[in-house]
Amino acid sequence: MERPGTVAIIGVGLIGGSIGMALRSKGMAGRVIGVGRDATRLEVARQLGAVDEIETNLGRGVAEADVAVVCTPVTRIVEDCMEAARLGPTGILVTDAGSTKARIVSGVESDLRGRDCFVGAHPIAGSERQGAGSGRADLFEGRCCVLTPTDRTPPDRLDRARLFWSGLGCQIVEVDPIDHDDRLALTSHLPHVVAAALAGSVPVEMLRLAAGAYRDGTRVASADAALWSGIFLENRSSVLNAIEEFGSRIDQFCQALRSGDEASLIAWWEEGRSRRNCFAERSRSNDSLPV
Amino acid sequence: MERPGTVAIIGVGLIGGSIGMALRSKGMAGRVIGVGRDATRLEVARQLGAVDEIETNLGRGVAEADVAVVCTPVTRIVEDCMEAARLGPTGILVTDAGSTKARIVSGVESDLRGRDCFVGAHPIAGSERQGAGSGRADLFEGRCCVLTPTDRTPPDRLDRARLFWSGLGCQIVEVDPIDHDDRLALTSHLPHVVAAALAGSVPVEMLRLAAGAYRDGTRVASADAALWSGIFLENRSSVLNAIEEFGSRIDQFCQALRSGDEASLIAWWEEGRSRRNCFAERSRSNDSLPV
Repeated sequence: MERPGTVAIIGVGLIGGSIGMALRSKGMAGRVIGVGRDATRLEVARQLGAVDEIETNLGRGVAEADVAVVCTPVTRIVEDCMEAARLGPTGILVTDAGSTKARIVSGVESDLRGRDCFVGAHPIAGSERQGAGSGRADLFEGRCCVLTPTDRTPPDRLDRARLFWSGLGCQIVEVDPIDHDDRLALTSHLPHVVAAALAGSVPVEMLRLAAGAYRDGTRVASADAALWSGIFLENRSSVLNAIEEFGSRIDQFCQALRSGDEASLIAWWEEGRSRRNCFAERSRSNDSLPV
Repeated sequence: MERPGTVAIIGVGLIGGSIGMALRSKGMAGRVIGVGRDATRLEVARQLGAVDEIETNLGRGVAEADVAVVCTPVTRIVEDCMEAARLGPTGILVTDAGSTKARIVSGVESDLRGRDCFVGAHPIAGSERQGAGSGRADLFEGRCCVLTPTDRTPPDRLDRARLFWSGLGCQIVEVDPIDHDDRLALTSHLPHVVAAALAGSVPVEMLRLAAGAYRDGTRVASADAALWSGIFLENRSSVLNAIEEFGSRIDQFCQALRSGDEASLIAWWEEGRSRRNCFAERSRSNDSLPV
């Protein structure tokens, strides 16, 4: 496993903070530098033990970094990656933790310096909560991290990115950036849209009659609005396709219900049920089937 | 609090089993008799401590009961309530735990003997799991139980039903049976439809890229198909209305996303988010606002 001497984490929220905690608890880095625009929030991250040092200037933050990992909102990642590539040492590995990949990867790769040191990444872990205060050193343990190398990705950086993310506890999966966005639209972005739509469908005065199904079905609706709007806009067409797929399943249900067709309702339910059970089974066995 | 000497639980699955465990752990009943068609399952419930005695004949099971609580699937509740009313002692209170109320209440009340001893009830607690083995004595603690008295409900039975369900730990809410079904369509039946549709929207080979949002959003999809198909069919028009409400929220989202309107996406998300946060707040404070 690579032991990067110095890691700069750009954006020390839930994901960036958890990366810092994992690096420090595993002794994976000599120095962990938290880089951000808000000195107060950085100081909180430092006191939480997520980073060793803090820096509000990106150039100074990455000046001696072996690895820069960009954990800012998806709308800022391209710019932050290019800055880190331009201002860091020649040998720097720049990687990110963005929930979308196609625009980010093509954006960073449109820059010569960016292309030479960048590997797109998406650790599939998180929470509806925000901030380093909700971070956990074990957030990535056993979770998938999707790397999205292209034919322009330098092989040595790809190797180092594999070591970096697997060192944090992730199982590595490698997928084309566009495939990543299509798949995550179904596995993550759709569940977020559905949770928020479900949450908003129940009038306040009826919430007292809501229980576990509403509670769990809407948990992620308490996530940050700007963060998720950014992700949806970045992945617009794939998200719309995913909603269409979901909508056609809802339509099938309504058709069966309207016609009072019990056998079709049961068959429809069993399809969802077996998919859900399959997911639960894989989670239990921590299966590493190829994507 | 009423101390019913003998309670017959008709249908000893998750809900019936939990009622038995709660009655016994609170010393609320001298005898708890589990009534069902499957002697093997009843024996399991007895060994789990959910009931004192078991009986496969409904008439014998309710012969000395002060209270009969019917926890069979919604499609069988009317018949089981009428049987319990007909075969139990004159003073018996018959109540149920069905997830729908309009057809059940009008069905039982269409029977003279049924009307004289019945109070419709729906404890809003449960799980995606089945069977007394998943039961818990504290399942009802602090949860709402909706009672659905009508102008035909005998006042003494209503008083006894309040004492019975509040004795199990429930907070009592009283609502018209039709209102109950309209509201539960939104707060419970819709979340179940959405969970199953979401579960089925993600192809098996992509499940590895699913994480917490999919996991929680689909949890209840692993519930029993026949049980839920029965509930949907019983509450058909209210469920279809609830889906329409949900669908219009999804449509609003798609419109904002298609036009790349970030401000509308954020406003849309915030509506769901504030509703979800309101739910979480109420759950924490165990608020007892009227419905």
